[in-house]
Amino acid sequence: MKKVAIIMGSKSDAPVVAPAYKTLKLFGVDVTARVLSAHRTPEEASAFASGAADAGYGVLICCAGKAAHLAGVCAAHTALPVIGLPIKSSFMDGLDSLLSTAQMPSGIPVATVGVNAAENAALLAAQILALSDDGLAEALKERKEKMKKDILRDDRAIEDMIAEL
Amino acid sequence: MKKVAIIMGSKSDAPVVAPAYKTLKLFGVDVTARVLSAHRTPEEASAFASGAADAGYGVLICCAGKAAHLAGVCAAHTALPVIGLPIKSSFMDGLDSLLSTAQMPSGIPVATVGVNAAENAALLAAQILALSDDGLAEALKERKEKMKKDILRDDRAIEDMIAEL
Amino acid sequence: MKKVAIIMGSKSDAPVVAPAYKTLKLFGVDVTARVLSAHRTPEEASAFASGAADAGYGVLICCAGKAAHLAGVCAAHTALPVIGLPIKSSFMDGLDSLLSTAQMPSGIPVATVGVNAAENAALLAAQILALSDDGLAEALKERKEKMKKDILRDDRAIEDMIAEL
Amino acid sequence: MKKVAIIMGSKSDAPVVAPAYKTLKLFGVDVTARVLSAHRTPEEASAFASGAADAGYGVLICCAGKAAHLAGVCAAHTALPVIGLPIKSSFMDGLDSLLSTAQMPSGIPVATVGVNAAENAALLAAQILALSDDGLAEALKERKEKMKKDILRDDRAIEDMIAEL
Amino acid sequence: MKKVAIIMGSKSDAPVVAPAYKTLKLFGVDVTARVLSAHRTPEEASAFASGAADAGYGVLICCAGKAAHLAGVCAAHTALPVIGLPIKSSFMDGLDSLLSTAQMPSGIPVATVGVNAAENAALLAAQILALSDDGLAEALKERKEKMKKDILRDDRAIEDMIAEL
Amino acid sequence: MKKVAIIMGSKSDAPVVAPAYKTLKLFGVDVTARVLSAHRTPEEASAFASGAADAGYGVLICCAGKAAHLAGVCAAHTALPVIGLPIKSSFMDGLDSLLSTAQMPSGIPVATVGVNAAENAALLAAQILALSDDGLAEALKERKEKMKKDILRDDRAIEDMIAEL
Amino acid sequence: MKKVAIIMGSKSDAPVVAPAYKTLKLFGVDVTARVLSAHRTPEEASAFASGAADAGYGVLICCAGKAAHLAGVCAAHTALPVIGLPIKSSFMDGLDSLLSTAQMPSGIPVATVGVNAAENAALLAAQILALSDDGLAEALKERKEKMKKDILRDDRAIEDMIAEL
Amino acid sequence: MKKVAIIMGSKSDAPVVAPAYKTLKLFGVDVTARVLSAHRTPEEASAFASGAADAGYGVLICCAGKAAHLAGVCAAHTALPVIGLPIKSSFMDGLDSLLSTAQMPSGIPVATVGVNAAENAALLAAQILALSDDGLAEALKERKEKMKKDILRDDRAIEDMIAEL
Repeated sequence: MKKVAIIMGSKSDAPVVAPAYKTLKLFGVDVTARVLSAHRTPEEASAFASGAADAGYGVLICCAGKAAHLAGVCAAHTALPVIGLPIKSSFMDGLDSLLSTAQMPSGIPVATVGVNAAENAALLAAQILALSDDGLAEALKERKEKMKKDILRDDRAIEDMIAEL
Repeated sequence: MKKVAIIMGSKSDAPVVAPAYKTLKLFGVDVTARVLSAHRTPEEASAFASGAADAGYGVLICCAGKAAHLAGVCAAHTALPVIGLPIKSSFMDGLDSLLSTAQMPSGIPVATVGVNAAENAALLAAQILALSDDGLAEALKERKEKMKKDILRDDRAIEDMIAEL
Repeated sequence: MKKVAIIMGSKSDAPVVAPAYKTLKLFGVDVTARVLSAHRTPEEASAFASGAADAGYGVLICCAGKAAHLAGVCAAHTALPVIGLPIKSSFMDGLDSLLSTAQMPSGIPVATVGVNAAENAALLAAQILALSDDGLAEALKERKEKMKKDILRDDRAIEDMIAEL
Repeated sequence: MKKVAIIMGSKSDAPVVAPAYKTLKLFGVDVTARVLSAHRTPEEASAFASGAADAGYGVLICCAGKAAHLAGVCAAHTALPVIGLPIKSSFMDGLDSLLSTAQMPSGIPVATVGVNAAENAALLAAQILALSDDGLAEALKERKEKMKKDILRDDRAIEDMIAEL
Repeated sequence: MKKVAIIMGSKSDAPVVAPAYKTLKLFGVDVTARVLSAHRTPEEASAFASGAADAGYGVLICCAGKAAHLAGVCAAHTALPVIGLPIKSSFMDGLDSLLSTAQMPSGIPVATVGVNAAENAALLAAQILALSDDGLAEALKERKEKMKKDILRDDRAIEDMIAEL
Repeated sequence: MKKVAIIMGSKSDAPVVAPAYKTLKLFGVDVTARVLSAHRTPEEASAFASGAADAGYGVLICCAGKAAHLAGVCAAHTALPVIGLPIKSSFMDGLDSLLSTAQMPSGIPVATVGVNAAENAALLAAQILALSDDGLAEALKERKEKMKKDILRDDRAIEDMIAEL
Repeated sequence: MKKVAIIMGSKSDAPVVAPAYKTLKLFGVDVTARVLSAHRTPEEASAFASGAADAGYGVLICCAGKAAHLAGVCAAHTALPVIGLPIKSSFMDGLDSLLSTAQMPSGIPVATVGVNAAENAALLAAQILALSDDGLAEALKERKEKMKKDILRDDRAIEDMIAEL
Repeated sequence: MKKVAIIMGSKSDAPVVAPAYKTLKLFGVDVTARVLSAHRTPEEASAFASGAADAGYGVLICCAGKAAHLAGVCAAHTALPVIGLPIKSSFMDGLDSLLSTAQMPSGIPVATVGVNAAENAALLAAQILALSDDGLAEALKERKEKMKKDILRDDRAIEDMIAEL
């Protein structure tokens, strides 16, 4: 199975990004975390993205805030699918990050997930890899079943819960 | 190679969506266009998404405007990667569609591209399929090279072009 | 009198939703709380909405945050009036929820109340049921009178209150 | 069956509002159109809303743009359900109207539909009245079936349609 | 000199509104605080605004949040200048209040100040009254001079202040 | 009666501003139009505002777009009431102008009207002057009566009008 | 005197960018126009920015729309001042471009001008170069004087102009 | 080397502004901090900007919040490059400040940095001065190298860091 790289623009993003890392580990995906900045280490970021396919990566998850260029810069240097995870920083709850990540020019797509939605970034990466890995596909289905059961259990308990509020 | 389905909520979306269809055809991807509405034909939309993996699809591209629920509804019924293409309708240049598509709850990711970015939705689908199709991967690289050459050609001509404006 | 169902997408919405439940109880309305997710238990949500009219429900109140699809998904499966209660989550004080709930396509209306306005969702449901229940209509008028008296009392006290600030 | 009043703040809103009027007529609902302004004829607007229940109205649809106070002002004077239809005027595609209509204070709900969504306002009114009118309920279901058939027909034609674009 | 009324939609607005009251008191303006709600006590609000000119008021300051209709409703019932003070409540830092207050239809102006800018509302009222009261005009000029001196004093101290940060 | 100055930042604003000028003329107010720019002729703008009170002006109406500083700059130089008219230019329907005009710091109020609401700016100026001019106050009341009659006439005609749409 | 490079992400930006080019030519600045894309020719863009200082450039003007990364990418590769010119494309009048350009992370500034403000980008570049070029400084002052005279001339003509509208 | 002035509209901005001051001191730039208000001390602000070039300043950094006019007012009075630093105050995380600073009319540019981006304002000023100061240019390059090394060090540590979260 191909590997997944989780690239963040700053180590201060780590607490937000960590659920993506842990979710992929849980699925047994070979995942690497990197700190590579579109603006502070542009050569390293470009070099990593350029060589990612040959290094065995199948998906890159790029996490950045504010004028979030990291996903776009990586997408410019690879034809692998790039997932953009906009991080909420100090402005309008991440509207700047969301627009900077999603509104890419024609020719260079970024698969954008919601603001701070680290777990969803990981699940999307897993869904992509699962296209050629039946075991992973099965694990994703089980996870959906588990989520469903959790909701059904909550459904049975909700009247009592509200009564106590 | 797995197939791609392009699902739109209304036939009125067809002119915006068409470049996605044509781009995938150009790459030789087996692509199907459907009109399925999260709100007007919810059973059909759910049934299609639920059966998509077994029917040989690898990626779903879901296109909708306003309170754009189609991608989310499809993602609820499949573990395949779902690409959301927010369509600009009558409100704030598609801000409603973008937020309705991207801001998914944890557990159900949607790979959102930019507003009206039909070509990027197609390229993202192709990038995902290319992970297990070397020919498609090569074709995507060639397309990037072609884009690069176009820009380099424009670069050589720009001073003359501006002088004539 | 017909029943009201309050459906929330996650039990974590319960504290915001509870005032809707309690307000309806106060009016003697037969109210049921459910946890049903448009994305995690889509079949259950669809089935509940599809059967709601036959099960004696008159109004559904659907509460969800972010890309809030729950009200729209329920409205797709019933011709009962559906009230959408957008919940503020982590992004722009609920702008995503508000737009995802209100901007429905033609043919499938959702009666949207303000962000986190649980009490108003309940009152709207009661107003709808009161059209065929004179006792409830009377209770709603009394409540308006009570609100008025509260304001008039506050009006008499306000100069003293400001003087002490 | 109770009547529906469609109240607009200015006759210039008539082209946007007309589909609401015509949709209700099609359903055989007894509908009245009025021009009553929260700001220019406040007494008349208040008087109409205050007397609406006694005059046989069951639902008020209030249409206004910009700082759209009409629905709120009517809701202040009646315990009938009030549907707010925000009209797009000159600013940010109706964001001002949407917020002015939806964000009502606790105690005075307005059932807000999407910006310029006149047909949905009418359907919501019909859904409310249908709670005590089985014929209208049946007609609403038929309309949903008709919508569904239209989508299914479009679905069969879409591949040909895209091929011709 | 004519009087000023400060009208708030809820006593919970009092802490935000209080600086307006105290500023006008400082200038010796005859100021009255009222709690009158456009939605909960609409008759009282209308009656007060209708009779305000005859009761000796020269300016009304109307303070409200969310779908802030109070200033508009008062302006509908009087030809006195009405100052709208949008109050920040729970949504987007008061964007809803600002738009609901400022975007009035043609014919019914509201003099809108910034979000939560209670002191400015008071100063604007004083500026209006000062047109026919030379003493008040003089007091306003002195206040401007005082502000200027405060800034000049801060200017002299700023280098030291920054050095200590 | 005191005079009104209408100051615009550029002659290109004249078509939007003209209704303010003409409305004041209709009321018999002594009105002057000026082109003075906060950025291009800052000395002239400051000098005019500083001397406005002594020159017999009672109200300044300041019209500007984009980063609309004109009203604020004038308000900095006079204690007269300053009305800010935000002009829609090329960005987000005037959101930049509205915020740049309304969100003044404490101590320097600007009476902001809606985006492009030239007539309302004029009416607000007239309302302010009318506090010491009974004839003008009477004319304003008559205008309100006229508006009311227009709405009542439209109300009588609306059903026929809609039927023809 | 050092040179200025105007870099645009696509030749389709040329009509918006042209005034920047022409303004600099008028001032006698040695200006070069380039088409270099952060996403389509990232190596060329990086290489140009990296070598710009040695090639005699003093300021880079970077023009791009949507998720506008060009200015940031260039700023990552040079310590020269980089001016960002956000271009309005299809979304919210350029809000995406403005935020993607201005909200840079700490350490990598971009000097952002207004949306589509090509002339201002050129003037800012000229102001920077004028710090070490007295002739250019003088030319900039003359231009300010010329603007002032234009406004003063418009000021004299405005009353007649409005009368004719 | 020319001097830099950091002008803030209020001493309450000092904590946000301080990093700009300290960064410039670190680079050995001759920097002055001032409190000058566009609205409270307009003459002093204008006079300072008008005389800044003759007083040996090369760049002005202007910091203000809300309707942030300070940078624009200074730019109106000088042909020196003016850097605008929008300060987040109480509204929408500084959207008002950002638009009030960046959206300047043609002819009067302001070099706007991100909201609260004090360090970037200082670095931009240093970049401008470095065009005629090789030592400063060298120091800026070293700073970039330092940033790069910090990121590379964080990159080596990130897997361990995430594992511990």
